[in-house]
Amino acid sequence: MRILAKELLNLYSDGEKEPAASEQIELCGWIHRIRELGAVNFVVLRDRSALIQLVLDGKCPYPLESVVRVSGNPARNPKAPGGAELRVISMELLGGADGNLPYQVNADVSKIGLEAILDNRALSLRNPKIRSIFKVQSTIIEAFGSYLRAHDFTEIKTSKLVAGSTEGGTELFEVDYFDRKLCLAQSPQQYKQMMVASGLERVFEVAPAYRAEKHDTPRHLNEYVSMDIEMGFIESEIDLIELEKELLAHIFEEVAAKNAADVAAWQDKGASVPVPDGILKAPIVGYEEALKIVNTTEGKTGQGQERIFDMSPEAERRISVWSEKEYGTPLVFVNDFPRRLRPFYTYPSGASGTMSFDAIFRGLEITTGGRRHNEYEVLAEALPRFGLKKENMEGYLSIFKYGCPPHGGFAIGCERLTQKLLGLTNVKEASLFPRDRKRITP
Amino acid sequence: MRILAKELLNLYSDGEKEPAASEQIELCGWIHRIRELGAVNFVVLRDRSALIQLVLDGKCPYPLESVVRVSGNPARNPKAPGGAELRVISMELLGGADGNLPYQVNADVSKIGLEAILDNRALSLRNPKIRSIFKVQSTIIEAFGSYLRAHDFTEIKTSKLVAGSTEGGTELFEVDYFDRKLCLAQSPQQYKQMMVASGLERVFEVAPAYRAEKHDTPRHLNEYVSMDIEMGFIESEIDLIELEKELLAHIFEEVAAKNAADVAAWQDKGASVPVPDGILKAPIVGYEEALKIVNTTEGKTGQGQERIFDMSPEAERRISVWSEKEYGTPLVFVNDFPRRLRPFYTYPSGASGTMSFDAIFRGLEITTGGRRHNEYEVLAEALPRFGLKKENMEGYLSIFKYGCPPHGGFAIGCERLTQKLLGLTNVKEASLFPRDRKRITP
Repeated sequence: MRILAKELLNLYSDGEKEPAASEQIELCGWIHRIRELGAVNFVVLRDRSALIQLVLDGKCPYPLESVVRVSGNPARNPKAPGGAELRVISMELLGGADGNLPYQVNADVSKIGLEAILDNRALSLRNPKIRSIFKVQSTIIEAFGSYLRAHDFTEIKTSKLVAGSTEGGTELFEVDYFDRKLCLAQSPQQYKQMMVASGLERVFEVAPAYRAEKHDTPRHLNEYVSMDIEMGFIESEIDLIELEKELLAHIFEEVAAKNAADVAAWQDKGASVPVPDGILKAPIVGYEEALKIVNTTEGKTGQGQERIFDMSPEAERRISVWSEKEYGTPLVFVNDFPRRLRPFYTYPSGASGTMSFDAIFRGLEITTGGRRHNEYEVLAEALPRFGLKKENMEGYLSIFKYGCPPHGGFAIGCERLTQKLLGLTNVKEASLFPRDRKRITP
Repeated sequence: MRILAKELLNLYSDGEKEPAASEQIELCGWIHRIRELGAVNFVVLRDRSALIQLVLDGKCPYPLESVVRVSGNPARNPKAPGGAELRVISMELLGGADGNLPYQVNADVSKIGLEAILDNRALSLRNPKIRSIFKVQSTIIEAFGSYLRAHDFTEIKTSKLVAGSTEGGTELFEVDYFDRKLCLAQSPQQYKQMMVASGLERVFEVAPAYRAEKHDTPRHLNEYVSMDIEMGFIESEIDLIELEKELLAHIFEEVAAKNAADVAAWQDKGASVPVPDGILKAPIVGYEEALKIVNTTEGKTGQGQERIFDMSPEAERRISVWSEKEYGTPLVFVNDFPRRLRPFYTYPSGASGTMSFDAIFRGLEITTGGRRHNEYEVLAEALPRFGLKKENMEGYLSIFKYGCPPHGGFAIGCERLTQKLLGLTNVKEASLFPRDRKRITP
């Protein structure tokens, strides 16, 4: 029976159950490293749990990255990684490998370029440091769901094939759907609002979302994982911001508990898990106030900086610096965006503001959200001011015809959150199979 | 502060914390039913948790389905549903409703046709019985993930925009992706295999999958939620079948614990949660043996039945009847499908069989799976026999070039499992926003 490398190492680390030297143990995994010293040869075996040293009498018969099953006697060895090794009696090939690797799996990640990493996903993920990105991401998705379920949210799955866009935008991918054209959904906006109105009241969804944007930047993906929530019976966007604080604090706690080693692997890039306390006390700054801050307090720190007129990437960076300095937290909320910058369905606030917000985490917008209009008549009247026609919006308007509670929601970009948690340079590093204008494989 | 209807009812059901008659309590929800008796009027209020009776002095000022906030004094009343009611002091409108409903939300579901249900999702889900389908589905998705995480599986999210099909099929939806054509993925097959080879070893994904099939049947959807797993270091499909048994038993246990009332709502259609014990002892029948059974033992039960030559829907129905009769379980696995019926990547078994299987639950195939080839050379040689060219398959073949363990996986159709658990006539009832040849909205 196969055991994991980590299980074998644990037998020595706690000392109590240490196996007899005559006991035979079976391991399976990939040949990670080969060191031939003549009579005695060392192989490092890699499985999903850890690396472990194998000691062979003869030469290793298979090249690097071959998948093998080995059987042998365990032994304590303070010089071996993890403090133990397996003295191999037999080795069997389970999956052959071409010895001619495109690059060294066991090499320093910083020496492999982004394109090479993405072109060879089956190979690049064998590097434990790169694999750790997706161990963290798996926990993020789990913790997102577990927090929301504990707060009475229902998980929904909605169609990604839609007739048009709620946002009225043009950045849509078209699909040939039998004898007509549909579009890939930019967000589950309409559907999650419908589910609130349907009486589920609180819903969430984790699903792909699509933006046919042409720009190629370190912060954009044409296909990304959107972690969406929508909830009824709120007063304003403040209820949503409070929920997001608690939700992010929970996600960070789970990552800290389950992925300490994965996060530590990216320490050189500034990876760290924020303390929940700092997340809960993240400041909320009005849009106009935020612009003032990025143009004065933080704007003065650089030389010859140009005036910022909206919450641009540079403004996001500056407001985060301010938040770290003033509140000691990497998270800051900007609310009360002007009406002209938000979609027609955004609930107004004051003369020209809205009950909407962005969450900015370590200099990057990870969330947009807000309260929405919930009255049919009010919405129908608002449409012309946004250049929209009532007759084209009947599908969306129908949500509000038969009683819809005050509600709102937000979405967290899964890859962006992963990126910023680990200090990754490019959001594409946090997507297993990113899509951009040029990249369509693997 | 709003409390839920269920919380108010609970105050009376346990007796201990019963509130004083003078205490003022706030509820929010939809006006589900109005009964006007002159001086005293009754309204049934519906929120996400339960129905509760309101007592009004005057007439109810708002039509059915309006969203209101009410404040009043709680009282015990054995005649009210749940044994308690709220004597209303004030009622405030939160979301107006057009009194002219397309159909009665509080009516008997069996009187509403499928098309009307699907056309009016925001309204049809207000019926607690219909809503219960998606409460059950939410638990299925949760339990699928929680079981797999506990067994060291990593959740992955892969691209749904792919260059072509692993299956070599033609039933693909095409997408205009900038200046070229991509397809919507039929399954994450290639990606999940790649993730096993990458060293994650065990992965799962819950995501949309697309089939551009033209048939319109009660068992098909053009877009469905595929619950996929893939794992390394297996011996044969039997390891996968054992995993699926344990996984389904866990899912059913969770549904039984969390959704007893939701399942009970569909009792008239034969809804019931199978006992885990029956699931764990589900029989495994070879393909040829299964055909014998459906043509003899079960074939003889009907009059003038035609001979069945493959595992058709009728065969699936018959083998389930047999399994119920012989083993007392609604689940049966058919394995060892002939090579000509399975894709090129399926691992062979014996002279002409394969290490593949279907899981059939209550007369419907809910899973296809199997062990896959994991050696580059063997796969490359197999391609021509399936009419495939090596040069078109390099992307897929590259997974196996640098060491891939023996592995396999399967997928469970989320809507089909939901359908069969609740006894729904049509799989579309188990999809919030089903897509078929004609239906593209809502």
